[in-house]
Amino acid sequence: MQISIQKDYFKQAVQEVMYAISSKPALPILSGIKVMADANGLTLTGGNSDIVIQRIIPAIVDEEVIVQVYKEGSVVVPGKYFSEIVKKLPSDIFIEADEVFHVTVQSEEIITTMNGYDPEEYPVLPQMDESNIVSVSGGELVEMIKQTAFAAAKAESRPVLSGVHISVQGSELALAATNGQRLAMRRAMVEAEWKNACIVPSKTLLDLAKLLQHSPAIKMAISESHILFQTDSLLLLSRLIEGNYPNIENLFPKESKSVIASNRKNLLLGVDRACLFASEWRHNTISLAVKNGSQLKISSKSTAVGKIEEVQTIEMLDGEEELEIMLDGRYLLDALKAIKEEKVVLSFHGSSRPVLVQPFGDEKHLHLISPVRS
Amino acid sequence: MQISIQKDYFKQAVQEVMYAISSKPALPILSGIKVMADANGLTLTGGNSDIVIQRIIPAIVDEEVIVQVYKEGSVVVPGKYFSEIVKKLPSDIFIEADEVFHVTVQSEEIITTMNGYDPEEYPVLPQMDESNIVSVSGGELVEMIKQTAFAAAKAESRPVLSGVHISVQGSELALAATNGQRLAMRRAMVEAEWKNACIVPSKTLLDLAKLLQHSPAIKMAISESHILFQTDSLLLLSRLIEGNYPNIENLFPKESKSVIASNRKNLLLGVDRACLFASEWRHNTISLAVKNGSQLKISSKSTAVGKIEEVQTIEMLDGEEELEIMLDGRYLLDALKAIKEEKVVLSFHGSSRPVLVQPFGDEKHLHLISPVRS
Repeated sequence: MQISIQKDYFKQAVQEVMYAISSKPALPILSGIKVMADANGLTLTGGNSDIVIQRIIPAIVDEEVIVQVYKEGSVVVPGKYFSEIVKKLPSDIFIEADEVFHVTVQSEEIITTMNGYDPEEYPVLPQMDESNIVSVSGGELVEMIKQTAFAAAKAESRPVLSGVHISVQGSELALAATNGQRLAMRRAMVEAEWKNACIVPSKTLLDLAKLLQHSPAIKMAISESHILFQTDSLLLLSRLIEGNYPNIENLFPKESKSVIASNRKNLLLGVDRACLFASEWRHNTISLAVKNGSQLKISSKSTAVGKIEEVQTIEMLDGEEELEIMLDGRYLLDALKAIKEEKVVLSFHGSSRPVLVQPFGDEKHLHLISPVRS
Repeated sequence: MQISIQKDYFKQAVQEVMYAISSKPALPILSGIKVMADANGLTLTGGNSDIVIQRIIPAIVDEEVIVQVYKEGSVVVPGKYFSEIVKKLPSDIFIEADEVFHVTVQSEEIITTMNGYDPEEYPVLPQMDESNIVSVSGGELVEMIKQTAFAAAKAESRPVLSGVHISVQGSELALAATNGQRLAMRRAMVEAEWKNACIVPSKTLLDLAKLLQHSPAIKMAISESHILFQTDSLLLLSRLIEGNYPNIENLFPKESKSVIASNRKNLLLGVDRACLFASEWRHNTISLAVKNGSQLKISSKSTAVGKIEEVQTIEMLDGEEELEIMLDGRYLLDALKAIKEEKVVLSFHGSSRPVLVQPFGDEKHLHLISPVRS
């Protein structure tokens, strides 16, 4: 293999593939990036036991030559060292690999040589059945991930809860995540004539959100054991988490006792302040209390240090005019941060049932937070 | 005590005093900030066993009222909670302390109460003899600290080496730090008619550099056990490290075998790249080699992964035209970062003696790096 490539384009692509490379790989060769050069350009592949990222660099972009392939071929380069040196090279990069996989990387007067691996020994990508595909805009999928993935469980005691549930059903794509105490859900309209669901590790989706935020269109396909996300230049394949996801629909309380609307930003700032003394508790317990049907009192206290309370004006109320509930302030803060709309609606269903938090006038985006028993 | 104070002014002052507050204080009261209000304004004090920071907030600044003192007095507030809530308050802040040291902090509709401490129990500041004072500009002192403190030892095996040696001798102020393998030194002209020297913990000086970077003039005084830095609004008092500092002057090699001048930035980028394969070694060993009196070869290698080398053009050479030395690339990188000038001079004294690194044409700023034995 012998190529030369534009520095900036290559740096970016190498960093993207590095997302998939673990510092403690299961096989030594998985610490490497597979570089393959052919007439179309360059394909970089990086992977670990959870995900594979493949990045395609076309030979020509907008009539400009990005890659010059002097000799086709492939090699696996040591990922960490290769990506570090590529970051620090001053101009276009010449890369050559010989038959014993010695790799030479040159830019101006800087010559680096490293020991690579035989590309034949690199694992083959699992085959995906791409007959059932759904298309989503990159911007929307990234938003859906950011609004849900944070709510997944951090601990691995119930593996299914550490993932995000993705379901496609007719014209609806839904993402949901829960750790048992709080749940986030976001739906979107798509065009699909099939039905399937899976659980994807939340870290994979958060990496995907970083990689795909500028992609106009993403194709998604689900198989028995993998989910595929693909754009013109990027392919991300993730393993699925096995197991049964809890039935989410049953979790939503049906009849609310009281519904209030508030300014999201004011509420967020107030809850953030109330969390000050809440961190002493295992659940960051804060109290929300509706007073006289017009005021919301947000408070927390720590017997050792002190207490904080503030009163905000409710913009709208429907239902009971006096109520109080204790909940985890951090969970409410996360929900209020995930919502971007100016106004937010909180639905209360009694002091022992979850609070529903939603943007005003948007039924497709929901957060549910269980109360803390005091 | 009863006061009201401008939010932004107060936030800044509280954050500055928090530098001195340890998360694991020796006495519980040292987790607090002492707030004292009198006719002149407010004085905030925070401290730990190493340093004390005192911040003065005058009642009036530029004809604008900053603090209104309704009732003079003092109290010690819990530092962490107080600083957190002050950061998050939306507008001017009202603070009141009662006779049992309950503190109320209010801003708009937000009321926080916390348990404070009796200010009488707060340690008294050590007295300083201020007859021997030297004045330095804040900008210059900060620069001197940044150019030397990084070179102090990280490990505490020889306590004196974890500090920066500060000496005042007639018209010269000198800061020096060394970990035994590298040394950084910076001198400046000052007006002082006395002679003294001390060793100050490097962390204290780095905190000071953050706090004082915009101060036009800093007064400095040295006593048996403390060093004092003082501006109109800030006082920082640090304990000294006891012990004898190595005789620095003897460390500088007298006769150089070869002196070269190079572009600092190019050299820095080259050394940074060469460090890539050097991290495998205990000393980040890189090689510098002068070739034909006109070229500098910078290289490193790792038997397992590979090697890197590059050749740079030397701008000027005086002395031997061929030489090679192995040294710790990180130390050379630190020295090249501390220098701001465009051109840098390296003096070689043989492969087993230290390399001297200096900005071109500036004798007051020196770095010495011992070679690594291969």
